[in-house]
Amino acid sequence: MKTGILYGISVGTGDPELITVKGLRLLQQSPVIAFPAGVNGKLGMAQQIIAPWLQPEQEQLPLTFPYVRDMSVLTQAWIAAAEAVWQYLQNGKDVAFACEGDISFYSTFTYLAQTLQALHPELKVELVPGVTSPMAAASVLGCPLTIRQEKLAILPAIYTIAELATVLDWADVVVLMKVSSVYPKVWKLLQQRGLLPNSSIVVRATLPDMITYKNLSDRQNLELPYFSILIVQITNRNN
Amino acid sequence: MKTGILYGISVGTGDPELITVKGLRLLQQSPVIAFPAGVNGKLGMAQQIIAPWLQPEQEQLPLTFPYVRDMSVLTQAWIAAAEAVWQYLQNGKDVAFACEGDISFYSTFTYLAQTLQALHPELKVELVPGVTSPMAAASVLGCPLTIRQEKLAILPAIYTIAELATVLDWADVVVLMKVSSVYPKVWKLLQQRGLLPNSSIVVRATLPDMITYKNLSDRQNLELPYFSILIVQITNRNN
Repeated sequence: MKTGILYGISVGTGDPELITVKGLRLLQQSPVIAFPAGVNGKLGMAQQIIAPWLQPEQEQLPLTFPYVRDMSVLTQAWIAAAEAVWQYLQNGKDVAFACEGDISFYSTFTYLAQTLQALHPELKVELVPGVTSPMAAASVLGCPLTIRQEKLAILPAIYTIAELATVLDWADVVVLMKVSSVYPKVWKLLQQRGLLPNSSIVVRATLPDMITYKNLSDRQNLELPYFSILIVQITNRNN
Repeated sequence: MKTGILYGISVGTGDPELITVKGLRLLQQSPVIAFPAGVNGKLGMAQQIIAPWLQPEQEQLPLTFPYVRDMSVLTQAWIAAAEAVWQYLQNGKDVAFACEGDISFYSTFTYLAQTLQALHPELKVELVPGVTSPMAAASVLGCPLTIRQEKLAILPAIYTIAELATVLDWADVVVLMKVSSVYPKVWKLLQQRGLLPNSSIVVRATLPDMITYKNLSDRQNLELPYFSILIVQITNRNN
């Protein structure tokens, strides 16, 4: 029997309509739909995004990826997820893995695919790119993320304030992907640099309960959820 | 009469199926479709991408944006484009502007929208985000663009080698958006840093005549077209 294909499908940032036409076609053609399982009894983000597109006959396969940094715990989780997916692939069924944002951009899918390909080098994996949160946030703000020769820096969840200071010296636009845990320190640095009026935050971009803050000058004490993205425009665009 | 809405629609990197479901819906609902005109008798990139989706009754409006840096020439072109689009908007017709890649990411649309909003502050503009070339290139290469805490730097068309050297010290992953004109100098710097095996180029990502180079060690003399993107992975991912 022919092995199934593993599709890594970017489903975008929240609005179900931000999946690509290709992603939707492959999602709807696949008999098995995998996604990161939600935590604390809630649906996972990718699972919520694709809910309107799924058919009752499609099998749903939630995969557990613990939010820890212990490599042995993570590796065990990836192997367990790979084995669950392989049960379908080896029986000739295609599996579509739904990933919030873009599949190549800080995605859990990377580890699942690498684990599967290490165990089964013949496996065919096909990736469908998608809409990332910096692009969604810029669209929502109605303000370009980058223009002309602007240099863009994107920093993920964990970073130090010293790193941010270095990047502010180098880049024209800086995006902090998940800013909630370090926001008070970031706010102070942006204040010192006089950058608060040019800084914006988008919470849950493109979801119905989205919130936007277009100027952070009076926003020292924001309580931000996990899906909060901060954009700092450093260089004056009027020159 | 009610003024029409201006939609800025990201149409992705080349494969027509990489438009979002939302982008396609708004594109097909709009009576007028604007896009950057092609040069030298060729179709523009966005125009090529959306061709399969358009209906004969939709009016096509090519807009001229000259490839120059002279601000007075550019400003005149933006005003002419804004006036052409306004003819439809003021008659209550929605206009969809199709933009290759993402509408907020180094897009010509920014100037058109700003010019129109300066002339007609009441105008409603709605943006639909989309797939950018760094994400498309990563999907095509089958290699994640960023994982874990990796810091990403994106440099647009024009930059100096000194700037690139600085960013190689700081970032974990660097994307050069339009590398063709500076490729020989970039290759030498990557050679000095021992980064050629971890550098990839994607030419015309997701188009039928796409080319990929996964290791640049033996690729000193590539003749690269305009739509060539280079990805350098600096940090060892096996640690």
